[in-house]
Amino acid sequence: MNTRSVIHQFNLNKLFYPESIAIVGATNTPGTVPYDMVKNIIKAPFRGTVYPVSPREKSIIKIRCYKYVIDIKESVDLAIIVFPGAVCHMALEQCGQKGIKAVVIISAGFREIGPKGLERENRLIAIAKKYDISFIGPNCLGIINTDSRVKLNASFARKMPEEGTIGFLSQSGALCTAVLDYAQAHHIGFSKFISIGNKTDINETDLLYYLMEDEKTKVILLYLEEVTNGQALLHAAQEVILKSHKPILAIKAGRTNAGAAAAASHTGSLAGSDEICDAAFKQTGIIRCDNIEELFNRAMAFAYQPAPITNKVAIITNAGGPGVLATDATIKNSLQLARFSDKTTTTLKKQLPTTANIHNPVDMIGDAKVDRYSSTITATLEDKEVAAAFIILTPQSMTDIEAIAHEIVNQSANYQKPVYTSFMGEADVAAGINILHHNQIPHYRIPESMADALKHVYDFQQYLNGNHSMPAPLSNIRINKAQALLTKATQNNRHFLPQNEAAEILAAYDLLSPPQQLAKSKKEAIYLANQIGYPVVLKVMSDDIFHKHDVNGVQLNLQNNRTVATAYDLILQNVETKQPNARINGILVTKMIQQGTEVIIGMKRDPSFGPVVMFGLGGIFVEIYRDVSFRVAPLTNEDAASMITQLKAAPLLSGFRGRPRADIESLKDCLLRISALTIECPQIEELEINPLIVHPQGCIVADAKIILQTKPQ
Amino acid sequence: MNTRSVIHQFNLNKLFYPESIAIVGATNTPGTVPYDMVKNIIKAPFRGTVYPVSPREKSIIKIRCYKYVIDIKESVDLAIIVFPGAVCHMALEQCGQKGIKAVVIISAGFREIGPKGLERENRLIAIAKKYDISFIGPNCLGIINTDSRVKLNASFARKMPEEGTIGFLSQSGALCTAVLDYAQAHHIGFSKFISIGNKTDINETDLLYYLMEDEKTKVILLYLEEVTNGQALLHAAQEVILKSHKPILAIKAGRTNAGAAAAASHTGSLAGSDEICDAAFKQTGIIRCDNIEELFNRAMAFAYQPAPITNKVAIITNAGGPGVLATDATIKNSLQLARFSDKTTTTLKKQLPTTANIHNPVDMIGDAKVDRYSSTITATLEDKEVAAAFIILTPQSMTDIEAIAHEIVNQSANYQKPVYTSFMGEADVAAGINILHHNQIPHYRIPESMADALKHVYDFQQYLNGNHSMPAPLSNIRINKAQALLTKATQNNRHFLPQNEAAEILAAYDLLSPPQQLAKSKKEAIYLANQIGYPVVLKVMSDDIFHKHDVNGVQLNLQNNRTVATAYDLILQNVETKQPNARINGILVTKMIQQGTEVIIGMKRDPSFGPVVMFGLGGIFVEIYRDVSFRVAPLTNEDAASMITQLKAAPLLSGFRGRPRADIESLKDCLLRISALTIECPQIEELEINPLIVHPQGCIVADAKIILQTKPQ
Repeated sequence: MNTRSVIHQFNLNKLFYPESIAIVGATNTPGTVPYDMVKNIIKAPFRGTVYPVSPREKSIIKIRCYKYVIDIKESVDLAIIVFPGAVCHMALEQCGQKGIKAVVIISAGFREIGPKGLERENRLIAIAKKYDISFIGPNCLGIINTDSRVKLNASFARKMPEEGTIGFLSQSGALCTAVLDYAQAHHIGFSKFISIGNKTDINETDLLYYLMEDEKTKVILLYLEEVTNGQALLHAAQEVILKSHKPILAIKAGRTNAGAAAAASHTGSLAGSDEICDAAFKQTGIIRCDNIEELFNRAMAFAYQPAPITNKVAIITNAGGPGVLATDATIKNSLQLARFSDKTTTTLKKQLPTTANIHNPVDMIGDAKVDRYSSTITATLEDKEVAAAFIILTPQSMTDIEAIAHEIVNQSANYQKPVYTSFMGEADVAAGINILHHNQIPHYRIPESMADALKHVYDFQQYLNGNHSMPAPLSNIRINKAQALLTKATQNNRHFLPQNEAAEILAAYDLLSPPQQLAKSKKEAIYLANQIGYPVVLKVMSDDIFHKHDVNGVQLNLQNNRTVATAYDLILQNVETKQPNARINGILVTKMIQQGTEVIIGMKRDPSFGPVVMFGLGGIFVEIYRDVSFRVAPLTNEDAASMITQLKAAPLLSGFRGRPRADIESLKDCLLRISALTIECPQIEELEINPLIVHPQGCIVADAKIILQTKPQ
Repeated sequence: MNTRSVIHQFNLNKLFYPESIAIVGATNTPGTVPYDMVKNIIKAPFRGTVYPVSPREKSIIKIRCYKYVIDIKESVDLAIIVFPGAVCHMALEQCGQKGIKAVVIISAGFREIGPKGLERENRLIAIAKKYDISFIGPNCLGIINTDSRVKLNASFARKMPEEGTIGFLSQSGALCTAVLDYAQAHHIGFSKFISIGNKTDINETDLLYYLMEDEKTKVILLYLEEVTNGQALLHAAQEVILKSHKPILAIKAGRTNAGAAAAASHTGSLAGSDEICDAAFKQTGIIRCDNIEELFNRAMAFAYQPAPITNKVAIITNAGGPGVLATDATIKNSLQLARFSDKTTTTLKKQLPTTANIHNPVDMIGDAKVDRYSSTITATLEDKEVAAAFIILTPQSMTDIEAIAHEIVNQSANYQKPVYTSFMGEADVAAGINILHHNQIPHYRIPESMADALKHVYDFQQYLNGNHSMPAPLSNIRINKAQALLTKATQNNRHFLPQNEAAEILAAYDLLSPPQQLAKSKKEAIYLANQIGYPVVLKVMSDDIFHKHDVNGVQLNLQNNRTVATAYDLILQNVETKQPNARINGILVTKMIQQGTEVIIGMKRDPSFGPVVMFGLGGIFVEIYRDVSFRVAPLTNEDAASMITQLKAAPLLSGFRGRPRADIESLKDCLLRISALTIECPQIEELEINPLIVHPQGCIVADAKIILQTKPQ
């Protein structure tokens, strides 16, 4: 945590729990943001003291107004600045002089309008640093704290949300208004509601640490458009999740990107920023959501109900069709239909009409009323095999919808098992749904969403139960050797290190290549081939040739002096034809490796998330099916293992259809070594072993390349 | 079309447009189905005459009651039977005697309760046939026709829907009540609303033909749980779509199935019934939906707005975040963001504040009011590059939501371009959404759904523009030869035809294998190898060995007499070890085929959809990635072409990374020949060519097997 972050943790309590607030730039003109701000704070109603500050007004909404913030005698915990963007820095300076440490800057007119605005932001930051101020914004909707001890609505939103356990952070202010409207209609309550705007000072990471400690918050929701410091976000998220067990659900918008046109490695071209974000979130336990509806559907499940012990669900319905749809969704989401005990089916048989289906999914038939719902819910929730219940209702003319809703509320209170509902329709079922919402029974418009929500609650529990500790230090690592090689290369202004040099660096991390040496002449090549022993491979080495195969610069399986000589000539002729200006370092002579399973291990540095390790099987698996896995380094043992097993092609490594079994333990070790190299040698910008040959015992690097950062570190 | 179907087409008009209705089994007890039925018909209000029929009542809701249906003097067009299941057949018999041709049987207690119920259904069918009656049900909610000429609500639903252009068919009665409730709240109108129940007589296919001709219906929605006769459904759907251009949107529930455990071919194990349903619907132009929300979201787009000319969309928003989410969804759904003309951007620049984004997606900024929406919508819809508009609104305190809704309605009327909307939130935006719903502007809760809906409208237009004609007759087909071989095999009670026999049948369809002959002894094998010419392949032929490789029954690339002799012994020893009881027909000697791209062509008969052709690349592509395509036979040229191009592995056929180009034209021809064989030789239950070797010029069958129907046709 850097200095500013430490200061923020100190100041954030003043931000959310102020005893006094100054609204700097307040006016008396209804319908304006400055006016709405004062009105909202009063209306909440804020439990502390409010000081409107305005150079022109005597009082605002009957409250005495101060010309400047420094004119206020009493101490002020929080300032809300609503002046135009051009003069905000003056207001912030005065806040600093007054000793105010927590500020929300609502005003727009900053980086979103271009360089002039960015300049303004920099001025704000300088002032904040000078006075150890922490500020939210600029260009935001404000903040809300529903805690009854403070009742703070320092925002220009239309409404104050209900008190609840969800902490919400949004980078889009306008989206907040939609969310508040949506949440109110569904009785979704919030603990803290924060529009972070341009997040110039306080950012999502600072707020994650704050919400981790906040006892009112049980579930954290994020809406992000850009992740400036992905590594910091991941660290914070991991800490929050593993320490506090609070789930983090996030929308990260901006999935589509133009894509890197020409990349020096597969890793470069396959690791689009969105794929990396996906992988990074999953690895950290952050639940990525595609849209607002998904976000709140899942959040309700986390906030309102316990997690299931197993993934076995009972489906209870008065309509066959939706029961089938819910079953489909249950299976699709890797959940299971619970198999009822004999006792349960016997009970159901007794209580339900003969036309009912007493097996899971239980169809109580269209004319089911509250008594049938009641006895069915009891029978299934009593069953030890059942870990969760999905209850469906469609409105027949005899369906006593509200009574059923109340019954579900009552029954749910008796069991430590999650109960989700879907009352299908709209107007007829509205009153029933309202009862469910009010009593924190998650309700979903379509049955499919119940399965989606439960899957995420269940998976999160599995994640928490996983082992996320770092692996033991690796043996046989010679950092100094690697560093010496990299320093030398950097000093020589090298950018691309071909196989022979990459192999040396990898060898320092005990990632071994076959015997190999660089030949500068045909004669030397023949000499080296004899030293190494036949069969051999010849490959052109050049700082300018990223893809040797594209220039026909590789000759495999050469058996004797004569073929080595001819191959040597041929490679030079091919390069001369295809890339005449390439500087040639020499021709690498390597021992031909015995066959095995070819895999790729790659690494690139993502501008936001930092070093990312990629794994895949070679050739078509990567190029046609994009069957690859990513993890942000450093990797845990579990990361390395799951990078392998998550591939669709994973069966090919474990003896599929008579193929040789690959040494998975050795492969995992290679991934961990690349992870270590990546962390310990930041000069490496991109790296690719392609292929790594995995044998039944051990792995060997058949080809590799390293790209260095252009600016030496 | 069979006789019953012809009769239905004749009777369906009486069903939906009756001038008189008898409600058979009516009662005077409020809250019962028979009572609600009479009440709903009266309340609609039905334009014709109503005759309640009840053995016990004098009158029902003040309308004179008849003891039996035959007591009615006047002619009756439609009877609704609401008697208990056990006595329905008597009522139906009397309807027949009375000359009533259209009947709806609401009563339950049929196949859904087991064999006794099925027996009852059979009795109903017999009576219907005797009198040429067509009936809907039993076990259904009834039917609704909103046409103002008739106003028929012959259902026990809670409400009569609004008049509209959507025809809805559901196999689940209870789902109908939810749909009606949902639709009413969204002002979604229906032309016909039909609960088909057990579809014992009239089924979805009959109704598709009826709705094709129904001038009130523009869009057809289906909810199906089982497709009894998939081929008939596909034929009807294809006719409806291509003739009337009415889109068909369908939910087919029951996606999950246990899966065939042990299958004799890849085709058998890969072609699960749900995959086939997916492929069959797509091939026919039916739009498959996953849930009710998707169904109506897409239906609104079809029913309310024109199709776009291109896939280029303008996104207009007052909130950046949702604009980004809509952009992501647009790209993900294979649509494009329109690139505005200079004129458009100049206009937008003039009209919008400097902080706005004047490029697509247009962000008018949170404080946008109706004037900004108005000028932006005009500017973008005037732009020739823009084929459709997505308009997003979030409710800021100054947003004049209703005025903006009205403005969208007005503007949309001026352009032949689809306009979809998403007013995000709930209570605050409700009045605005209501205006949109009332005026047939599709509205979506989340912006992402706009992109999903437009994609389906656009794709449907592309489908209509495609070529769906049958291919020209294929040359060199000797049906008689194939039939003779199949007849002989069938007569000999053969079930499994190994390669040598399959090759003969395929050859009759000009699908050639390399030179090959069956050897009965080692000596003969050597003799045949010399005749055919080295190198050769030896393979065991047996009616009992489905997978020759599993018993090590294949030896490739044999170069001389000695290796043929040894290989012959080895194969027999292997089979003796692995499958000692296998009856061996002989050892097949074939010419070794030069290398090429290996593909699989398979065929199996689905119980519902009939013959299905499968295509994929060999080995891991099929086994690991399940990268296969399916089409129901017969195939059009386009089907054959798209079966190839839709594979992810398709690039491997067209010279990927130095591989030889495969002869795609020849491959398509092979697919069409398999399609023809499948149609013309119904004795073949399952067939697989694995592999077919595709060379740069031509294809050759390297291995094949055929499974015959157990019961001869």
